[in-house]
Amino acid sequence: MDALVQECVCVRGKSMKNSSTAFKAVILAGGSGERFWPLSTEENPKQFLRVFGGESLIRQCAQRLKSVAGEKEVFVVTSKRLVAATRSELPELPLTNIVGEPMRRDTAAAVALGVSLVAPGEESASSDPVIGFFSSDQMVLNPAKFIKTLKKAISTARRSEAVVTIGIKPTFPSPAFGYINPSNGAFVEKPSSKKAANYLKKGYLWNAGMFIARASVFKRAFAQFAPELYPLSIKPFSPAARKRFYEKLPKISFDYAVMEKYGNVKVVKGDFGWDDVGSYGAFDKYFPHDAMGNVREGPCTVVESEGNICVARSARISLLGVKNLVVVTTPNAVLVADKSRVSEMKKLVGSMK
Amino acid sequence: MDALVQECVCVRGKSMKNSSTAFKAVILAGGSGERFWPLSTEENPKQFLRVFGGESLIRQCAQRLKSVAGEKEVFVVTSKRLVAATRSELPELPLTNIVGEPMRRDTAAAVALGVSLVAPGEESASSDPVIGFFSSDQMVLNPAKFIKTLKKAISTARRSEAVVTIGIKPTFPSPAFGYINPSNGAFVEKPSSKKAANYLKKGYLWNAGMFIARASVFKRAFAQFAPELYPLSIKPFSPAARKRFYEKLPKISFDYAVMEKYGNVKVVKGDFGWDDVGSYGAFDKYFPHDAMGNVREGPCTVVESEGNICVARSARISLLGVKNLVVVTTPNAVLVADKSRVSEMKKLVGSMK
Repeated sequence: MDALVQECVCVRGKSMKNSSTAFKAVILAGGSGERFWPLSTEENPKQFLRVFGGESLIRQCAQRLKSVAGEKEVFVVTSKRLVAATRSELPELPLTNIVGEPMRRDTAAAVALGVSLVAPGEESASSDPVIGFFSSDQMVLNPAKFIKTLKKAISTARRSEAVVTIGIKPTFPSPAFGYINPSNGAFVEKPSSKKAANYLKKGYLWNAGMFIARASVFKRAFAQFAPELYPLSIKPFSPAARKRFYEKLPKISFDYAVMEKYGNVKVVKGDFGWDDVGSYGAFDKYFPHDAMGNVREGPCTVVESEGNICVARSARISLLGVKNLVVVTTPNAVLVADKSRVSEMKKLVGSMK
Repeated sequence: MDALVQECVCVRGKSMKNSSTAFKAVILAGGSGERFWPLSTEENPKQFLRVFGGESLIRQCAQRLKSVAGEKEVFVVTSKRLVAATRSELPELPLTNIVGEPMRRDTAAAVALGVSLVAPGEESASSDPVIGFFSSDQMVLNPAKFIKTLKKAISTARRSEAVVTIGIKPTFPSPAFGYINPSNGAFVEKPSSKKAANYLKKGYLWNAGMFIARASVFKRAFAQFAPELYPLSIKPFSPAARKRFYEKLPKISFDYAVMEKYGNVKVVKGDFGWDDVGSYGAFDKYFPHDAMGNVREGPCTVVESEGNICVARSARISLLGVKNLVVVTTPNAVLVADKSRVSEMKKLVGSMK
């Protein structure tokens, strides 16, 4: 925290950051709970899973950010129905730091709400904090490197009009992520696998949805490129007014609404073991395997079966002569999917609605 | 019931069969519950499943036999731990008609116990009933034809020293059954598939484990070929004595202990839609399929999956992109097996012990 500590001033005996230079972190915690269904559900989405790394992903995220922003300056924008669960998961945050959206309107609205949550009113030279937005359900294997990278991004954001994004150094040509051209900050949509390989050659980075800028920069960007969201970015609506406002909003991502249009994007390269933990494939990555290549969690009997992911959260699972399946049981549901098809979980969950 | 009715005499106003010509049916209801695990278990073996034909297999079996032997002359030899469940399932039978073996000693011991249960003491010309033994967990699609065949077998047994067996007309060269050469009554063990095809050409029949003979014939056969079982066939031991007796018995089938050695075996051919319902494959045979060839029972969501047998007895099962699996859930267990491997269920159940 070297750079930040230098800028701290003491007020009434407490160490506080000067608000013009303070950093405030906003965790975006939406999530529909589809990708890890039935472990995750609408009421218990991915960020609450304790599967990876012992603690929930949102708690791990908050821990990383608290070490940079301080406990009182970590905020969460989540959906209304998840406010209580989020408060339980992050009891150390001030209650008012966790705010619920009345309905899902994608990340542009969530970012706008986050900006007014942490920086209501007009900015001035002495009151223009740097705000960072982060997803609640990503994994970072090397938090120390993450923090170092984040500080660099904060520092860049503080002394410019840029929206700074942390672009992840790709480990393989994934078609599941958007990419960023680090030389000009241009965002590109999720590519084909072939195009992705080409992007890697060109040094493009993964878009991990991390955005860092001064409050005033966010607000001006909304005013210019997403004027329908601008009011939400400057004033903290009452819950009733917020609901009325949201009802009229389009569903649009911050990438699409702002980042793809904003002229001053700076990219800080991140290489801290980032993973979006986007599907059951992550179990293969982070859990030990038995001699037949099966991952087991909970009571599983495995006979002449290989390459399966077997997660028993209720009754014992018994496998006989099967390969490359994902088998998950909870008290409410049983999933049996081909491992190569887990990216299509939304299709399955959708078909049940 | 034409032939039998002629031989009935009236005693004290009730219609009763003359004991020398009466027919007494014994249902052998052991079963370890392995083949349909977890639907069936040690405590709830296959004969209690209500999956096929609405009523349990043992109830269907008893109904068929009652129509020939009469309600009071249907008996059950089962395991001790299943006596109560069997009484619940067949409440119309006299309580003492259902007897429990203290431990499993295969069918030879069960037949011997059955003989002394229905015909204790010595036979005479006026007291030598025909006894038939039947498995509790087989399916008969055409009960009327079964009854007609059984009557023929009873009639044959009554006027001879033969052990009569009903041999089933094979519908395919199954390697899962023993065969009978109808010309000489010779029993042959479960063959290879190739040998089975040859047996079909020769007109061999499936051994369905149905044995019909006079009480005196069974007793003499035991005396001659399985003398260690003879005492059990003539006297109804007390439960304690039975336990001591069973402890010393070898595990041996009636086929092996007696039928393969007995010189006078007569075969009555049966063609009444017989099925031993020996594995989950039976679901494919007796249940309707959806457009993708899946059999579903209970709440199942099926997305781009084909040829599966999906039986949900607790939580909803969801399938995504899987083929030819057997997926079964009960409150206590979840089975996921390749359909081609269900004949190896014993391996799986064994590995859990």
